[in-house]
Amino acid sequence: MKIIVDCQGGDNSPAAEVEGALLALRENKELRVILVGDETAIRGILDARNIKSRRISVVHAPDVVTGNDRPTDAIRLKKDSSMIRAIRMLREDDSIDALVSNGATGVLVAAATLRIGRIEGVRRPALCPIIPDMYGGVIGVCDSGANIEVTAEMLQQFAIMGSRYLEAFRGIREPRVGLLNVGVEEEKGDDLRREAYKLLAKTPGINFVGNMEAREALSGDYDLVVCDGFSGNVLCKSIEGTALEVMKRLKRDIYSKKKYQMGALLMKKMFEEEKEFMNYLNYGGCVLLGTEKVIVKGHGSSDRVATKVSIAQACRVLRGGMNDKILESLKQCEQEAV
Amino acid sequence: MKIIVDCQGGDNSPAAEVEGALLALRENKELRVILVGDETAIRGILDARNIKSRRISVVHAPDVVTGNDRPTDAIRLKKDSSMIRAIRMLREDDSIDALVSNGATGVLVAAATLRIGRIEGVRRPALCPIIPDMYGGVIGVCDSGANIEVTAEMLQQFAIMGSRYLEAFRGIREPRVGLLNVGVEEEKGDDLRREAYKLLAKTPGINFVGNMEAREALSGDYDLVVCDGFSGNVLCKSIEGTALEVMKRLKRDIYSKKKYQMGALLMKKMFEEEKEFMNYLNYGGCVLLGTEKVIVKGHGSSDRVATKVSIAQACRVLRGGMNDKILESLKQCEQEAV
Repeated sequence: MKIIVDCQGGDNSPAAEVEGALLALRENKELRVILVGDETAIRGILDARNIKSRRISVVHAPDVVTGNDRPTDAIRLKKDSSMIRAIRMLREDDSIDALVSNGATGVLVAAATLRIGRIEGVRRPALCPIIPDMYGGVIGVCDSGANIEVTAEMLQQFAIMGSRYLEAFRGIREPRVGLLNVGVEEEKGDDLRREAYKLLAKTPGINFVGNMEAREALSGDYDLVVCDGFSGNVLCKSIEGTALEVMKRLKRDIYSKKKYQMGALLMKKMFEEEKEFMNYLNYGGCVLLGTEKVIVKGHGSSDRVATKVSIAQACRVLRGGMNDKILESLKQCEQEAV
Repeated sequence: MKIIVDCQGGDNSPAAEVEGALLALRENKELRVILVGDETAIRGILDARNIKSRRISVVHAPDVVTGNDRPTDAIRLKKDSSMIRAIRMLREDDSIDALVSNGATGVLVAAATLRIGRIEGVRRPALCPIIPDMYGGVIGVCDSGANIEVTAEMLQQFAIMGSRYLEAFRGIREPRVGLLNVGVEEEKGDDLRREAYKLLAKTPGINFVGNMEAREALSGDYDLVVCDGFSGNVLCKSIEGTALEVMKRLKRDIYSKKKYQMGALLMKKMFEEEKEFMNYLNYGGCVLLGTEKVIVKGHGSSDRVATKVSIAQACRVLRGGMNDKILESLKQCEQEAV
């Protein structure tokens, strides 16, 4: 198993990526990594720890892609950036299985979509982040922003790809799929949603349970929500923002009175555990589904542990044979449609 | 000031509406109400309290519109329902200024859009609920579901109507308007969002501050978010769902250990205040903007206090001359565009 790690573009680069890769190597003896970025900086971190391993190789690509780069410009002009170089190596080198990057999402998605082949039959790759629900489970959201405009067939493919992903990554059996909509009744929403509902209801290999309102996303009743990238983005970000703001507000409340502070002291461990529970860094990165090779977009704010989780996530998805299973499901779907 | 109150279709009808109207009458001496619904039931509540007031009239319309009714069917077939009758009276009787209903949103919006005239120049009426942010302010969301598909010009009108509404209802000066989008940069999103951005940037009479990500909805940096009805619906419901689920989770945590329960006991008042703070019933109903008469859709779960708040909300919007100001702003906007 060989994974290429983009060591630039994150908030804590390159330390987070280099140290995250070291943690991942320690946990998985079959793993080899290629670290791409500023060679001096990367070697500096390795040398400081006196690490010499044949399982690590370093590729020099000093330029950095940032969130301010237009995707098309970055792909054309920043060929010496770690991200674009990593994408090129992923395409050209058959021995490399996956890429992990904490860099700019927009550029990564565009470069991967343009440069890495798609699984046969896939119309458009889609992003699928994982959000903890409030009952110990998780919910995948597909698509969360790679495709602002979608068709019913694309939504159908998101359901298939997301289902195979949750099985491989989280071991969820027959993930319960909901179609994000403004109401639960079949005829709700616009033509796109009504068409998608009909299509999903007869799609083999998925466990479609019907329309889902955004209110139910964390209820534990769904494993995967299928949506266009615009509303998926709104869903993910409003869940994240609301959870953060509620916790911030409670904290402010607590500091407003001595009595509350005393109460909170007794609940210290509980609040710490909640903080850890709500820390999205613990849940891995966001996988781009539909490309021939596995691509994991880690959070920009990833530290070394979060980066290790993203690398381990890529390993698990590879081991689960996700892409073969997506291919198989898409073929089955096509056959039944004929 | 004369307001018609639909006394059916809510979870607590007709008591919530009749008693809510009585509370509103007590607070506002200029107010008169028409209670529409099952006359026996309404008179029963009034008689039990020995209420005889010339400021109250009762209209018998026994049929009930429910959430399961298709809007077009309800409008055509349920002419004797309190909601459809109330809409007809609102249209035909010039002395009636506003309607408050806790009934089915879809039917109310459809009936109002079809039967009540629009303010001159308005393309489509839009729903604008109010959500508390976490800093003592509120944010209006327009549209939250009346218009699943929109144009850039409609988004521009939502910004104008929502701004005049927040001024009249909440006294907010120059409400800060954000365009819901997948990123803050001007070129983010699809063609619709880019076109709307340009249009909003040059719209007179609004304080447009740029694109807003869903993560920032409760940050206190915005007073109004403008969006299509689909993503607005996702935004509102995911905020509501997440806040509820987080609080439920904390409650479960607390009950898991004696020590936490002791801590929570010290914080009892704080949690009670938070519960009250997050209770959306305290913030009034959802106004349908753009119709010639004021229409307030109360929550289905409204009790008498919530219904009183919705009636008072209608009064405040009327007193603030909202519709005249919307008309004025739309004209100004049209003139500058010429």
